[in-house]
Amino acid sequence: MAKVIDPWGSTLIEDYNKLISDFYLDRFDPKEFPNPNRLMRRGVVFSGLDLKVIAQAIKEKKPFYALSGIMPTSEKIHFGTKMVVEMVSYFQQQGAKTYILVADLEAEATRGVSLEEARKRAMEFHIPAYIALGLDPKKTTFYFQSDNIEVVHAAYKFSKKVTYSQFHALYGDSSPDRIFAALTQVGDILYPQFKKRMPGVIPVGCDQCPHILLTRDIVNRMKKENYFPPSATFHKYTPSLNGHFKMSKSMPESMIELPEDPKSACNKIKRAVSGGRDTLEEHRKLGAVIEKDMVFELMKQHLVEDDGELNKIYEEYKSGRMTSGELKEIACRKIVKFMEDLEKGIKKARKDVNKLNFVKL
Amino acid sequence: MAKVIDPWGSTLIEDYNKLISDFYLDRFDPKEFPNPNRLMRRGVVFSGLDLKVIAQAIKEKKPFYALSGIMPTSEKIHFGTKMVVEMVSYFQQQGAKTYILVADLEAEATRGVSLEEARKRAMEFHIPAYIALGLDPKKTTFYFQSDNIEVVHAAYKFSKKVTYSQFHALYGDSSPDRIFAALTQVGDILYPQFKKRMPGVIPVGCDQCPHILLTRDIVNRMKKENYFPPSATFHKYTPSLNGHFKMSKSMPESMIELPEDPKSACNKIKRAVSGGRDTLEEHRKLGAVIEKDMVFELMKQHLVEDDGELNKIYEEYKSGRMTSGELKEIACRKIVKFMEDLEKGIKKARKDVNKLNFVKL
Repeated sequence: MAKVIDPWGSTLIEDYNKLISDFYLDRFDPKEFPNPNRLMRRGVVFSGLDLKVIAQAIKEKKPFYALSGIMPTSEKIHFGTKMVVEMVSYFQQQGAKTYILVADLEAEATRGVSLEEARKRAMEFHIPAYIALGLDPKKTTFYFQSDNIEVVHAAYKFSKKVTYSQFHALYGDSSPDRIFAALTQVGDILYPQFKKRMPGVIPVGCDQCPHILLTRDIVNRMKKENYFPPSATFHKYTPSLNGHFKMSKSMPESMIELPEDPKSACNKIKRAVSGGRDTLEEHRKLGAVIEKDMVFELMKQHLVEDDGELNKIYEEYKSGRMTSGELKEIACRKIVKFMEDLEKGIKKARKDVNKLNFVKL
Repeated sequence: MAKVIDPWGSTLIEDYNKLISDFYLDRFDPKEFPNPNRLMRRGVVFSGLDLKVIAQAIKEKKPFYALSGIMPTSEKIHFGTKMVVEMVSYFQQQGAKTYILVADLEAEATRGVSLEEARKRAMEFHIPAYIALGLDPKKTTFYFQSDNIEVVHAAYKFSKKVTYSQFHALYGDSSPDRIFAALTQVGDILYPQFKKRMPGVIPVGCDQCPHILLTRDIVNRMKKENYFPPSATFHKYTPSLNGHFKMSKSMPESMIELPEDPKSACNKIKRAVSGGRDTLEEHRKLGAVIEKDMVFELMKQHLVEDDGELNKIYEEYKSGRMTSGELKEIACRKIVKFMEDLEKGIKKARKDVNKLNFVKL
């Protein structure tokens, strides 16, 4: 049986360790990188591929790139996108040439969003949001798939380098639209190398692993072109507030969107599954079950930057001195501040979005 | 079992009638069209799809288009290509807007011919050959797939409108490169309708039937775009000189390329499988077995324009008054003249090829 992760669906991945062994991923070690960010320090980035070559490029100040895409189908993003942007920004700060593409062809083909509408959404929301979340627009190259004829030509060329069976083994599906989408993504991932060979890192959620593996397979089969196989970081999902594995649009109460009305986000936190005990007495005596507390996980992944502050909250809550209600109060204040800052940041970035560095080929 | 015709291979199709019934094709009736050409009059064009709408457009002088492609992988063409060009030219003379695309993306992806090399071959040989064979360049729009971003975008969009199973049923194969090639061809076939809806006819050899059926399926699934499903004419193969079903490069003696050295072509004709009897006496008595005579078939399809002349040859040969050697002498003279004219025509057309009407988007 093929081991399948569906990058378009929401397959549950209960065991990240199993994922590492099934797909021969490397375990991530934050000590290999200078000034690891919150996600790297706290095990949210749990694995990767070929990261030594990136660590080395950083150390030796050699050229490398970081790349990610925008899927302009919705008018919101989510915490998973935030993690991608934070990882791209981290590598950008370490010297990566940075590329952000807008997957407007994929949006049109797979979700029926017209190219015009996709462009509008990307310019008015997605790109400003990426900037608000930490991307330095001055150091970033942006492009729309529909403007980049080199990428679509490459996708066609790569189609010869993969068989139906491999595709099926990686994706568990091989419908023509998925083949187009995946091979266009391979084109995107390798695009920075079309002119100059260099290592590149693609930060992705663990569900996007097949795209990276497909690209690496194709690179291996195109010896003549001599591409670097792409490196990748994989991060965990931000868990659902109602205790499920992954936030999902089908359960609105489980997920906080970005941006979201601060009050609404706060209310969702207040109703979230907690690790507090049934009675206050029990809680004081036994302490919180932190590993089941979705609010603590959200704070760890996203809301508390300082490790000392997070440790203190952990100790207080774990020991039972802090109640679940008190924890939620802190989280609520933090998410309100975060949403307010995000809204401001998006507005500010939107003003200058037309001046950015867009590639058109 | 799926009924499969492989447009990339050389599947034998022994029975054209079976093909008509298996694929629900229409039987071709030359009386529906004004001044039918040699191929139409003589049953070489044996079937079609939706040709009434084309006949009507001709009659009512309404806009319609004819389209074909150039596959610039080799430096020769063959009699099958000649038939396509003759059919396109026929419709052009009846008023069709005419489009010729160069499938350079397909050539690169599936045969490893670089875009530059493909362009060079098309400009120096294929396009001049098409003109030498009857195409009016002044009334033709040419484009390279790699220059036409609208077609590749459309291919991506169409990918959503076909399933793996349909693809497999039509082609008996569904490797990613074939999916790319086929959907890009669908883009090519519909390209003239992107700006203005109109009927179009695609003259093809019967092995290309799946592309037409795929396009018609996709059109039916895209009601909103309101494309006309493409019409098509299907012609028989030019039979192999050694009596096999179809000329093939793997049997060089069986096939005459275009252009070919006149002497070499003549020699191949002299060695061809004939319908002559074992002895002269028998031949005079019983007459030739014309339906097994590859040289007569070649004359009927390509070398004798005038019906009266062909009838006379038929009568003489059938009755045994003309020997197989004499028939071959006539064919030889005709092919020498044809090859000489073709060479001259290509040289002449090559001079003006840069002035043609190329689309670049």
